[in-house]
Amino acid sequence: MYKVAVVGATGAVGMHMVKVLQERNFPIDRLFLVASEHSAGKRIAFKDEEHEVVALRDFDFSSVDIALFSAGSSVSKEYAPKAAESGCIVVDNSSAFRMDDSVPLVVPEVNPQDVDWHKGIIANPNCSTIQMVVALNPLHRVNRIKKIVVSTYQAVSGKGLKAVEELKNQSADVLSDKDVVPEQFPHQIAFNVLPHIDVFVEDGYTKEEMKMLNETRKIMGDSKIDVAATAVRVPVFIGHSESVWVKFEGEMNVSRVKDILKGADGVVVVDEPSAAEYPLAVDVAGRDEVFVGRIRRDLNDPLAILMWVVADNLRKGAATNAVQIAELLVKRGKV
Amino acid sequence: MYKVAVVGATGAVGMHMVKVLQERNFPIDRLFLVASEHSAGKRIAFKDEEHEVVALRDFDFSSVDIALFSAGSSVSKEYAPKAAESGCIVVDNSSAFRMDDSVPLVVPEVNPQDVDWHKGIIANPNCSTIQMVVALNPLHRVNRIKKIVVSTYQAVSGKGLKAVEELKNQSADVLSDKDVVPEQFPHQIAFNVLPHIDVFVEDGYTKEEMKMLNETRKIMGDSKIDVAATAVRVPVFIGHSESVWVKFEGEMNVSRVKDILKGADGVVVVDEPSAAEYPLAVDVAGRDEVFVGRIRRDLNDPLAILMWVVADNLRKGAATNAVQIAELLVKRGKV
Repeated sequence: MYKVAVVGATGAVGMHMVKVLQERNFPIDRLFLVASEHSAGKRIAFKDEEHEVVALRDFDFSSVDIALFSAGSSVSKEYAPKAAESGCIVVDNSSAFRMDDSVPLVVPEVNPQDVDWHKGIIANPNCSTIQMVVALNPLHRVNRIKKIVVSTYQAVSGKGLKAVEELKNQSADVLSDKDVVPEQFPHQIAFNVLPHIDVFVEDGYTKEEMKMLNETRKIMGDSKIDVAATAVRVPVFIGHSESVWVKFEGEMNVSRVKDILKGADGVVVVDEPSAAEYPLAVDVAGRDEVFVGRIRRDLNDPLAILMWVVADNLRKGAATNAVQIAELLVKRGKV
Repeated sequence: MYKVAVVGATGAVGMHMVKVLQERNFPIDRLFLVASEHSAGKRIAFKDEEHEVVALRDFDFSSVDIALFSAGSSVSKEYAPKAAESGCIVVDNSSAFRMDDSVPLVVPEVNPQDVDWHKGIIANPNCSTIQMVVALNPLHRVNRIKKIVVSTYQAVSGKGLKAVEELKNQSADVLSDKDVVPEQFPHQIAFNVLPHIDVFVEDGYTKEEMKMLNETRKIMGDSKIDVAATAVRVPVFIGHSESVWVKFEGEMNVSRVKDILKGADGVVVVDEPSAAEYPLAVDVAGRDEVFVGRIRRDLNDPLAILMWVVADNLRKGAATNAVQIAELLVKRGKV
């Protein structure tokens, strides 16, 4: 049994971490819920017991075996190394350490072995990257992927609870002809789509788009995979969808892709177009797997296929993946 | 001055045709508003005058010079040839005749010369295709396009007025925790995205996706252009957005792309990421141009670039393009 802390326990992902730890019956003998001073004193239920949220500033990580962090990059940068130094293993959901060569970046279905070389911190990848690599890595293992062109349809919950509230309130405002004042997003998100997630960096790309390139290479352990991503926010509460075009080294046929994915860990194939069955954001909310459908060949390129990949961004895209990393640590005797 | 009929005048596109004819001051001496018997007798304003809607079944096309049809494929199949036989030129917004070799498929910025060989019917392309070719053809002329991978974010108004009502009502229902019963769409559209527009055809593609391949080839007059499309409905009222990856025959640099597009007919470049400026569906509603932004190089392929293309699907994607075809007929002395 382990002593586990959730840092950022009152946020959208943190609350899901607590929920997922309970649902998956992670072997906890003591749970610490940690957040900012502002949230300290709040009470959150875990296994029929109320836990009081304690302030991060006063928290002693030396009494903890595993800490799941989801409180933003600046909090992780300051507190994750301190927690690791005091002997606890940090699974960090922020982008702070993902591209650090001394920190493993892990998706359990893809690179479980990478937890073994952790030095106190293991990074949890970006939500849109996780679901893509879970769907693509099983294919990559049998036919090397050379290029991915992906366009995302990302839910507002990826930006936190305030963003969810903004979509709700703004939608009601638009429906009743009121003026809209964006706060969480750079522009109106209700009944609109925004090709802008995270900040713009070099070459006209956003950081979110660069994560999909760089994190995919690190997780899949292949620095030659090429990802051309366009990350788009859509007015959906939970569930990221991705339109993915993939080019392989050799010819790839659709029935083989379906067979491989049907047998792949953490993947559910939903692909019956004649019955209008394909993965949908509203259906995957609350689920831990990655859903794949609309699998079809590129009509003009025998090396390429297209697919539609959907997952719950708060669960497999964040909380579930973090808890699965903790489970891996236990399974591989690394905690 | 011409006698013009709008067939399907009470629909989402038909109403915009009337509006656009007025705004662009098309030389009309008599306007006929035609619709189903169900809508006959309704009154619609045009240039400060109320016009009564007449029933299609009783309508005599021999008194008309140009008829703009937007009443669905089955109506077009039955009435467009009859109208053409009686001497009027039909500009048809349905998919009925688009791939017919004896019918020109025209986007005025791309292939204006094709109106010259009409035999009574000219087809107006699919909304998602129009905006894509307006943005890509100027580039194709200087550096041949070999492949396009496109994912769309299409507004519900493309499906008609009932679909717009469904998004409004369903959104209100979801916000007040009521159950949702889809009628116009195969699944819930409020706060969701659907990778399914029009019916499924061969190879797991939808008809909408096949239109983007076949119509692009016909309009751009290049049967070798390859388009791998994923067409997705999003909860937006007006304005289709498209995430486009384009591969050219030769190297293409971003500043050249921007220069070409800034000088291109019917294109507006909105591309200042540092100021969070890029085209947005809510901004282009009511506009006739095609808006392009997020222009950037493919980081790993010097032959490819990415861009974000947005247009008002009811206007440039339908009504405006049809009226522009009528204007071309006048300009080229073909009516």
